[in-house]
Amino acid sequence: MASPLQELIDAFALLPGIGAKTGQRLTYHLLDGKRDIGHRLARCLEKAMTATRRCRQCRDYSEDELCAICRDPRRDSNKLCVVEKPIDLYALEESRIFPGLYFVLHGSLSPLEGIGPDELGLPQLRSLVDKMNFTEVVLATGTTLEGEATAQIISDTISPSVSSLTRLAHGIPLGESLEYMDAGTLSLAFRARAQLKPQQ
Amino acid sequence: MASPLQELIDAFALLPGIGAKTGQRLTYHLLDGKRDIGHRLARCLEKAMTATRRCRQCRDYSEDELCAICRDPRRDSNKLCVVEKPIDLYALEESRIFPGLYFVLHGSLSPLEGIGPDELGLPQLRSLVDKMNFTEVVLATGTTLEGEATAQIISDTISPSVSSLTRLAHGIPLGESLEYMDAGTLSLAFRARAQLKPQQ
Repeated sequence: MASPLQELIDAFALLPGIGAKTGQRLTYHLLDGKRDIGHRLARCLEKAMTATRRCRQCRDYSEDELCAICRDPRRDSNKLCVVEKPIDLYALEESRIFPGLYFVLHGSLSPLEGIGPDELGLPQLRSLVDKMNFTEVVLATGTTLEGEATAQIISDTISPSVSSLTRLAHGIPLGESLEYMDAGTLSLAFRARAQLKPQQ
Repeated sequence: MASPLQELIDAFALLPGIGAKTGQRLTYHLLDGKRDIGHRLARCLEKAMTATRRCRQCRDYSEDELCAICRDPRRDSNKLCVVEKPIDLYALEESRIFPGLYFVLHGSLSPLEGIGPDELGLPQLRSLVDKMNFTEVVLATGTTLEGEATAQIISDTISPSVSSLTRLAHGIPLGESLEYMDAGTLSLAFRARAQLKPQQ
């Protein structure tokens, strides 16, 4: 049977970008006098894995039924930004470029993997758009093939219900995922966003 | 108050070599459908931090009073290898070059930090050497200044009690720590180990 030490090395090695060697170094680092950090990480992991669910309005991660952004009265409720993943929303929030509300798809269109409009929450997005009367909806999906297809299907779905629909400018390199962008690139892309449907 | 998600990002960022950006990616990776791995890592962390103590004979990490190596009858109890850190022992075991027993110092000589012979367990090492009558003791401390000084003081302490005392060959680049060595380099260094006191 593997020792608790070896089990921890193996568990670390399951994380992306962390191999056996880094798993060893992290494990021994914690055992060599940093056990308080080890206990803290264990507590934070358990709590985050258990307490984090989806906001019922925007589908971002939240420990409450309604997330901090959706219930913040200072947010501009006339604007909505649609992103693929929660980490994309996190990156946009760090860039401080967007004052409005969000909607998280949790993926992009991928018929082969069984990810269609329902899995991306498009019926829920449509209800939200019908209810809120946004003056602008920004599509901030990635510039990958799947991201472009996702933007297209969202555009087809909600275009009749919104007065202005925009897409992030192609300041983002093609084939790149939003989570890797720095705040400056994200800001540029936001400022140069293209009209899909001119404001009426 | 920070959300459980943000707390987890911050906790990851306390690990060496993991910054805020990697902390975010790990956190979202686990939340995005890998929560079982998150729970597993939490359990392994808690168990390893709590259950891992020091073997009473060799001072390596162990969940039992006597570690798996010290109680293994197939190990060659005529040979002892002294290492600075538990991760050095782990690296040597992976190279499979040494069939004997170990002694872990948990550091190297550093008077300024208050690490002297007592902190390195030299009285305990001396008792072990006196009791076991090893035919060879290999000093496998690092080739740093502190490692060399540590080897010197161990040599002074136990030389009268052992018939053969050796030191890892300088196949290891100077200024490098053992934990980064590959198995091949460790094997070469072991084979070319130098006599400090000729076998009598």
